[in-house]
Amino acid sequence: MTDTDRLARQLEFILEIDRLKGIERRSWLLHSERRENSAEHSWHLAMMAMVLVEHAAEPVDLLRVIEMVLVHDLVEIDAGDTFRYDTAGEADRAEREGRAADRLFAILPPEEGAGLRSRWEEFEARETPEARFAAALDRLMPMLHNLHGNGRGWREHGVTADRVLERNERMMAEGAPSLWQVARALVEQAVADGMLPAGRE
Amino acid sequence: MTDTDRLARQLEFILEIDRLKGIERRSWLLHSERRENSAEHSWHLAMMAMVLVEHAAEPVDLLRVIEMVLVHDLVEIDAGDTFRYDTAGEADRAEREGRAADRLFAILPPEEGAGLRSRWEEFEARETPEARFAAALDRLMPMLHNLHGNGRGWREHGVTADRVLERNERMMAEGAPSLWQVARALVEQAVADGMLPAGRE
Repeated sequence: MTDTDRLARQLEFILEIDRLKGIERRSWLLHSERRENSAEHSWHLAMMAMVLVEHAAEPVDLLRVIEMVLVHDLVEIDAGDTFRYDTAGEADRAEREGRAADRLFAILPPEEGAGLRSRWEEFEARETPEARFAAALDRLMPMLHNLHGNGRGWREHGVTADRVLERNERMMAEGAPSLWQVARALVEQAVADGMLPAGRE
Repeated sequence: MTDTDRLARQLEFILEIDRLKGIERRSWLLHSERRENSAEHSWHLAMMAMVLVEHAAEPVDLLRVIEMVLVHDLVEIDAGDTFRYDTAGEADRAEREGRAADRLFAILPPEEGAGLRSRWEEFEARETPEARFAAALDRLMPMLHNLHGNGRGWREHGVTADRVLERNERMMAEGAPSLWQVARALVEQAVADGMLPAGRE
């Protein structure tokens, strides 16, 4: 591959991923009357990684965490966003996202595409301290959006406190235990304030 | 400062910067009928840093580049986005952005706020290889958006090819000369294709 071909493929990839800005999530923004998209969400996670790195359960390589959160949602360009509480969507998520990764990372020069894909796979596998911390941040942010936005995204989908705690506890407690303590206390407060139904009696 | 206070300030900062998603730039997205916001733009620059790092004029510390592009537009939360070709807005930009930095970074625990602010100041000063590469990426992306979006953002503001070349050449050539060569050729092609007026005769 010539240098010109190489750069052409890199620029094609840069242009292609502009599509992530059009992928809508379920979370509502705090200060704008619209839902969040996956590109700005990825930026926010990268900022959280910088600011909150001291709360990782184990020492982490910050660059690796940031690279993971920057690429973690790229596959949604083809596969769409799967809502955390959508168990049907979760069933074939891996297959849909695998096909998306095949197409997207192949736009890049081969070794570079493989490098980025390995970051995405590392995030998905959650077997390294970096991936566990990144996953905890990815769980925390929608909780903060909901808890500071009157629970709007959850209420629209009938999500109750017990499901929030059940769906997030393991990943957050493994990746960032001190952040999980705060998040759990906020959910309990939201139930006490009548903002969020508790769920099972 | 107790650990609890420290984490409370970190989370307050995380929530506050959600506002960057509501700051509109002049660039139009390639695949959605809306303008870009500064948060998703910052994500895109961080992705470009990862993908294009081999094109930096000098060897760079990638984490430092990414940290810089992630924070480089935060001051727009208070100061708004200043269009590259708006010479009036440019006149008091530094003062407006300085006040914004004073407020925003002070939300964080002091040493952490100072660390993030130093990344923003490094970006603005363009005195390190990392800052020069980051600035080149920040110049390249709106050019790509315009060149692949039929010049829409430029045409709306009467921006001509000679101004595009004049406003971007030094920073791009200093930070990423091979990217500048490609960008310049694309601008010349856009003029030849009748998409962009040449400017001065």
